[in-house]
This record gives sequence, C-alpha cells and structure tokens, in this order.
Amino acid sequence: MRVLPHPAPSEIRLEAVLHALADPARLEIVSFLAATDAEAPCSDIDLAVSKSTGTHHYRVLREAGIISQVYRGTAKMNSLRRDDLDALFPGLLTSIITARQKSHPRPKTAGD
Amino acid sequence: MRVLPHPAPSEIRLEAVLHALADPARLEIVSFLAATDAEAPCSDIDLAVSKSTGTHHYRVLREAGIISQVYRGTAKMNSLRRDDLDALFPGLLTSIITARQKSHPRPKTAGD
Repeated sequence: MRVLPHPAPSEIRLEAVLHALADPARLEIVSFLAATDAEAPCSDIDLAVSKSTGTHHYRVLREAGIISQVYRGTAKMNSLRRDDLDALFPGLLTSIITARQKSHPRPKTAGD
Repeated sequence: MRVLPHPAPSEIRLEAVLHALADPARLEIVSFLAATDAEAPCSDIDLAVSKSTGTHHYRVLREAGIISQVYRGTAKMNSLRRDDLDALFPGLLTSIITARQKSHPRPKTAGD
C-alpha cells in the first residue's frame, strides 16, 4: 500500500498553513472536511476544477499539514488534522472556517 | 497630501488576507503593529529586507485590508485595521498573532 508523506506536527509551519488556505478551492475542501468531521474521498467534494488541479490542491493541503490522506483500497481518503492544528494554532482553523462560511453560506457538495 | 487607496470593509476578502499573512516579513509587521497598538512608521520595524521589498510587503498588507497607511508630513504611518478585521473575521487575527508569537517569542524591532 502506497503511503503518502505527511509533515510531523513539529514540522507544520504557520506560513505554509496560511498559504495553503489562501485559495478558494482549498478553503472549500477544508470547510467540507470540517463539516463532515470524517474521512471523505476526493470525489465527494465538487471543486469545479480539473482532476489534476484538484489533486494539486489536496497535495498542497497535505504537505502544509492541514489534511491527512490515506489510501483505502483504490480510494484516497482525506481528513482534517484538526487536533494537530488546534494544538499548534489554537482557534486558527475555527476562525478561518467560520469566516469562510459567512461568505459562502452553503458549500457545494457532490450531492447538490 | 497623497492619499493611498484602501479597500472598504466590504471589499476585504478572506483569501487575500490569508495570502498577505502567509509571509514571515508581513507576519512580523502585523505582530509589531498589534503589540504597539498605535501608528508606527516603517522605520520602526526592522525587517532585514531591502527598502523596496519592505515597501512591497506594506503595500500587500494595505491592499488586502490588513493595515492602514497614511502620510503624516514625510512619514508613512502604518496601523492595523483591527476593528475591521475583527468584525469581518472574528478571532482570526488574534489566533494568527498568537500562533506567530509562539514560534517567534521576541519580535525584532529597530530598538534591538
């Protein structure tokens, strides 16, 4: 089983987290995962971008330490590293997700 | 007196704020202004970058809606738009400044 590299908590940098979140598609992924509060495959989140662009956005989030990605069978499952982020940067993720929800009250999902 | 353009609160976008803060020099400026809680000239903040690069960083912060810049005589004075940001994105600025202080306990100033 292929294992994707993730930064350890001590390697997560504030600047990289802010940079990763400074993008509407990546904010949408994070908001979705926060609302779902569970693992989700990429196909659950309709980003309205090409598959390769979508893959890039997930990789940026993973490499910044914001999400975890694991293979389960043929699916790549994504989840938010909320505990790690809340421990490192208390209140940051919540304030960003709340701010994003204010400007995008109803995130689009594949079920819409 | 030259007046610099600033976005109205309704024009301030979360993505632009996060992008502007995803940089160590700009985080240093914001942390300094938050700690000072007053107007400060650029010369008060030692960024260890060239003057033109420093000017660029202040401009990015101003155009994102994070700081206000006004000319007073020959000095350009900077201040944090804390009220605007706290109203738009409650808790965001505080969590970012707190996170930044944890990794940089003593910001460098011109007086060091």
